[in-house]
Amino acid sequence: MTGKLYVIGTGPGAADQTTPQAAAAIAAASDFFGYGPYLDRLELRPDQNRYASDNREELSRANAALDRAAAGASVAVVSGGDPGVFAMAAAVCEAIEKGPPSCRAVDLEIVPGVTAMLAVAARAGAPLGHDFCALSLSDNLKPWDVIEQRLTAAASAGFVIALYNPISKARPWQLGRTFELLAEVLPPTVPVIFGRAAGRPDERIEILALADADALLADMATCVIIGSAETRVVDRPGRPPLVYSPRSLTRAMA
Amino acid sequence: MTGKLYVIGTGPGAADQTTPQAAAAIAAASDFFGYGPYLDRLELRPDQNRYASDNREELSRANAALDRAAAGASVAVVSGGDPGVFAMAAAVCEAIEKGPPSCRAVDLEIVPGVTAMLAVAARAGAPLGHDFCALSLSDNLKPWDVIEQRLTAAASAGFVIALYNPISKARPWQLGRTFELLAEVLPPTVPVIFGRAAGRPDERIEILALADADALLADMATCVIIGSAETRVVDRPGRPPLVYSPRSLTRAMA
Repeated sequence: MTGKLYVIGTGPGAADQTTPQAAAAIAAASDFFGYGPYLDRLELRPDQNRYASDNREELSRANAALDRAAAGASVAVVSGGDPGVFAMAAAVCEAIEKGPPSCRAVDLEIVPGVTAMLAVAARAGAPLGHDFCALSLSDNLKPWDVIEQRLTAAASAGFVIALYNPISKARPWQLGRTFELLAEVLPPTVPVIFGRAAGRPDERIEILALADADALLADMATCVIIGSAETRVVDRPGRPPLVYSPRSLTRAMA
Repeated sequence: MTGKLYVIGTGPGAADQTTPQAAAAIAAASDFFGYGPYLDRLELRPDQNRYASDNREELSRANAALDRAAAGASVAVVSGGDPGVFAMAAAVCEAIEKGPPSCRAVDLEIVPGVTAMLAVAARAGAPLGHDFCALSLSDNLKPWDVIEQRLTAAASAGFVIALYNPISKARPWQLGRTFELLAEVLPPTVPVIFGRAAGRPDERIEILALADADALLADMATCVIIGSAETRVVDRPGRPPLVYSPRSLTRAMA
């Protein structure tokens, strides 16, 4: 008997940013696996079971969820934002690939959501309005020199950069080093957005020039967006500034 | 008197992928500006006005919407997907920057949505599960040589690449040229996903190796995702294959 495995993105956090598709999947599942704070956002019924785990236990969580689904349960793996962006969908796919053949028979449904960079961008203007990249700054799963190489390549080629997992207690210096590295290839005036809890009551959006960007403004729940040389800041009297990347490339790249 | 300007992302197309926040903004607005097919998806009331325009008239549409809002109306500019990703939010910000000072007083609210690459990725597995970039292949607003430079930089650095605006009647050869260019830096087996109308009844998701990728599989509503050298394909008996990019970097970059 094979059950169902939903991998659900609940969006950036505000209830009205969770899609009806995600809400329906949550209503349909019986067993919930995820990082505790993401599960805390759900209003589960008494007949729904909750299996919270730490945020670094992605593969073991995926395996546990897959086992339950393969045994016939209707299981949900829950991510904030979108499950396909530095979240659980890749871990579930990896567990399916590495697991016994029965894993491949599980009915898998991945439910997309509004990922953090889109929510932060919407509150700041349109910083992702032109070519951009999304990069995890965590060197737990890839070497730091590869991260530096990607940062330099992306900034040099004119991509706006959205950073996920910018900092944590175990990774305190990487974001500061990132700003130093990018200052070598980008103008000091390039805007940097620190966005946290976008759309929620405790939202915090801060905009600084790259030369003034301070890693201490970020925590592990912050999405940091670093503009390109094209990105502009529009001041507005009595309102926060707008940051946007023009649709047209207005001057030659170096 | 200053009105309100919503810039709304309705998501990839299925009604259950539009957030409640977007639905509430649609209900609150009186005047709707957008590309015709996006406005066609809305169920407007008789008291709501519709101003459809062609998809290449972004800046004039933004100006018209801004004028109405500055005159006191509650106006919605509607994009499919997310308005901040190759869509109307950047055009509206540009119109605000270039317009008269009164534009900066307009109450602007940008409502994010599930952008096409996330919807396509969810249907294919987790191709965006590691570092990736989003790039518009349109050379209407930037020179083609910059696009080539960005494609090569991104692929060489190990980013998965999501292409928006891959092809149109006026731009018939650029996607084929992109595959040729990427074949110089990526293995021929790298998976390429052609995703169209993800989550809708007319959905079409096709997965080919880069060596077999054919630009004729795409149209202007297709999102094309090109894997990195790390991206994997997992075959499943009786189900479509899963494409995913592992969370860990498993081998050294060239």
